[in-house]
Amino acid sequence: MNLYIIFIVTFLNCYVNGVLTNRLTMFRGRPNDMYGMVRPPVRDPDEVLKEIKPQYYDQRLNHFDDKDNRTFKQIYYTDDSHFKSGGPVFVMIQGEGDASPDWITDSSSFMVKSAEQFNAFTATLEHRYYGESQPFNDTSVEHLKYLSTEQALADTAEFIQYLTKKLSLNGKVIVFGASYAGALAAFFREKYPNIAVGAIASSATVLAEVDAKEYFGVVSDSLGTECSQNIREASQTLDELLTTPEGVKKVRQMFKLCDTFDTTDSLNVAYLIYNLAMSIAGAVQYNQDIDGICRIMNDPSGGTPLQRYAKQHGLPGDDDCYDVKYTDLVKAMNHTTKKGVGVRQWTYQVCTEFGDFVTTNVKDCLFGHNIPVHMHIQLCSDVFGPQITVQTIQKAVDTRNAYYGGRQPNVTNVVFSNGSLDPWHSLSVLQDLSNSTKAVMISGQGHGADMVYSANETQSLRDAHNLITNQLQEYLK
Amino acid sequence: MNLYIIFIVTFLNCYVNGVLTNRLTMFRGRPNDMYGMVRPPVRDPDEVLKEIKPQYYDQRLNHFDDKDNRTFKQIYYTDDSHFKSGGPVFVMIQGEGDASPDWITDSSSFMVKSAEQFNAFTATLEHRYYGESQPFNDTSVEHLKYLSTEQALADTAEFIQYLTKKLSLNGKVIVFGASYAGALAAFFREKYPNIAVGAIASSATVLAEVDAKEYFGVVSDSLGTECSQNIREASQTLDELLTTPEGVKKVRQMFKLCDTFDTTDSLNVAYLIYNLAMSIAGAVQYNQDIDGICRIMNDPSGGTPLQRYAKQHGLPGDDDCYDVKYTDLVKAMNHTTKKGVGVRQWTYQVCTEFGDFVTTNVKDCLFGHNIPVHMHIQLCSDVFGPQITVQTIQKAVDTRNAYYGGRQPNVTNVVFSNGSLDPWHSLSVLQDLSNSTKAVMISGQGHGADMVYSANETQSLRDAHNLITNQLQEYLK
Repeated sequence: MNLYIIFIVTFLNCYVNGVLTNRLTMFRGRPNDMYGMVRPPVRDPDEVLKEIKPQYYDQRLNHFDDKDNRTFKQIYYTDDSHFKSGGPVFVMIQGEGDASPDWITDSSSFMVKSAEQFNAFTATLEHRYYGESQPFNDTSVEHLKYLSTEQALADTAEFIQYLTKKLSLNGKVIVFGASYAGALAAFFREKYPNIAVGAIASSATVLAEVDAKEYFGVVSDSLGTECSQNIREASQTLDELLTTPEGVKKVRQMFKLCDTFDTTDSLNVAYLIYNLAMSIAGAVQYNQDIDGICRIMNDPSGGTPLQRYAKQHGLPGDDDCYDVKYTDLVKAMNHTTKKGVGVRQWTYQVCTEFGDFVTTNVKDCLFGHNIPVHMHIQLCSDVFGPQITVQTIQKAVDTRNAYYGGRQPNVTNVVFSNGSLDPWHSLSVLQDLSNSTKAVMISGQGHGADMVYSANETQSLRDAHNLITNQLQEYLK
Repeated sequence: MNLYIIFIVTFLNCYVNGVLTNRLTMFRGRPNDMYGMVRPPVRDPDEVLKEIKPQYYDQRLNHFDDKDNRTFKQIYYTDDSHFKSGGPVFVMIQGEGDASPDWITDSSSFMVKSAEQFNAFTATLEHRYYGESQPFNDTSVEHLKYLSTEQALADTAEFIQYLTKKLSLNGKVIVFGASYAGALAAFFREKYPNIAVGAIASSATVLAEVDAKEYFGVVSDSLGTECSQNIREASQTLDELLTTPEGVKKVRQMFKLCDTFDTTDSLNVAYLIYNLAMSIAGAVQYNQDIDGICRIMNDPSGGTPLQRYAKQHGLPGDDDCYDVKYTDLVKAMNHTTKKGVGVRQWTYQVCTEFGDFVTTNVKDCLFGHNIPVHMHIQLCSDVFGPQITVQTIQKAVDTRNAYYGGRQPNVTNVVFSNGSLDPWHSLSVLQDLSNSTKAVMISGQGHGADMVYSANETQSLRDAHNLITNQLQEYLK
């Protein structure tokens, strides 16, 4: 059978045969499911939520060509449960996945908690090309042309103006977002300062880099010295084994790879190592069972570090093997069906806008040295066409950083919050930029953790939430 | 003969037969010559200037479509006469006319004066579609598609990055501009805060309005009560005369209009009144011979106010008559030759982006009541096509103000300077917006006056220049 591990899963039901279902599968730092990089808040099963129906805004397809009057239906949700006349408007900017209305209704959403406190109207807009907000019937390269950060920001601007006018909402507007959408929130405040008075930008990956090599560096830090060192040793052994036919045979057995696994194409090797690495990194990114991983990796009774690493990754059933073929990945990514969960669209964005390619190019990388930038560029090129090269991506990255300001954006009224464990904090703002633009590092937390509220949250989360609340008070003065 | 008065003059040599050559002719608040709304500094004839040759940057035609790789040659000038290593970079943003290198070299340019003081490198970039920076061989509607504020701002961003990289200029960047280009400077700081640390925005018309009715209100204030009242009486008489055949005959004689002048089309009436009004308003806008105008208007020996008004406008030679035909205006505006002085392009911008149509809709307008918004909209539609309506312009205006923030832009590090006499100050920022964004009203001065430096300048100009210098010091800290 042909069982993709992590990399190529485009539909949730593709990997339920594997044993990795209890952990988020990851693609390029984005979990392979409909929600993308930020998990919706987990509902309290006892809470009876007001049913929120999707509404549709006729959004302009291309904000940057006045002659083009095409539109598409963009989904949005609103809730006035906590709104009092004259109150502010809180808008959750959505990122690379389906928009969940829970963000604006569920009491475990920090934005909802804030809305209660500030009597705010809440709204959220699905990102173009994700979820049901599809401009076209497919995601062919030609049709992906209008998928970009700039179009998404302009969507947000048009939508907010439409909504506030339609409902006569005269209060100030604050935008929220996490991860890519956190960057969108910060960028929105930067570029549309006359529409939003402030932004809460959680785990906002504002810096673009072709080679996001710091990512695995943070993973190493988050796992701790001993655990990282064991993974490092496992990876070194693995890298060595993969250089000889006998070694490859051994790796196939240990990791239950199908016999077709072919190391003569280095992309297959990169693809294998990347899958293994991102399985660990994904757990770290969302602070899920780091202890469990390290328990296995640090337990000498599990054999050599490599044996522990193999055990850590689990094994398919007796009859299954992992079929690791880079070309299958390309094939899977070339599905241009409308209802994908967003991996293809997200890959298009990284390939054309910001890179942020996770590699093993950091010193003493715990995952060896077999994940080069080249693998990512090759995939971009194989999936979207040979016009994409390392030069075009570098140029896009440079343009983006010059335009948005990288890690030192010249922007007022933004809170940049990050989790200390989250490897993506390496692309965010970690220091206060001014009296009104603050950074807060939340110790012991992962990606976008502060978007969720809980009465039992850790002190570090509570501190971050208090800081955000204080800043909201300032921004809404 | 067919002698256009003011409105339709597209080439300087069109009106040398008239007697109006000693005053700038105006179209929609923009003088009808190659420089547009800001006059280059007047050279000291004794000063030997370094010769500055034009350079060419291969600018992207469309910054908002990654797939479109077309470029055009955009002219720029640079000067390092005052530059010392590590010094800042001062960029003069050009507006709706030919770029004059005098702005970056002549000692009567305030930016040059500032460059001396701050050891700055100076540069200026011609605005796309004006001067020699033509993307196409003609200015057909189809080819004007890429003429917009947003494209011009992106041009500036690309150019600054190119220039500073090429010449290894590491100092901070300040943008300067006046009038429309003053708005561009402020907008540039607002939207590209990571590229420019500040902006000096002289007479920056940042607010867009379909009906810029306040314009004639300021003209009235600037002329003073007596002078305005005499013009008002003249205009009232004129408006009345134009309602009867006998009256029209009288007007034809007084203003030497050709016999073909036809008031059955109200656009011809509007066109006549507009020409007369803008002749006065242009003088006020640039503070040129206001005293001379009022001397004539206030002199009872000149006959009735209307007779004085006719005298004020001068008369063509015995054999000449003014041929005032709205349809001729449309014809003239439809010339799509490449080397126009920019009136067609400027009209395209007002018709598609910001309106700012000067009308007589202000209370007790000194020019009567015959210049409606309709005249301007009709011209837009007749010249650029029926897709332009009052609704499309209103929408463009609303979008622009929401995006840039109108008279209350959320922007740091900008000086907004305005002349008290200048009717366009009604569209600018007249009050401090923050500790770093300052407004200064320069009494007794016209449009963009502070872009020019003189050792003998008035106290109000000196005060404004001192304020700008202090702010530059802050921005460059």
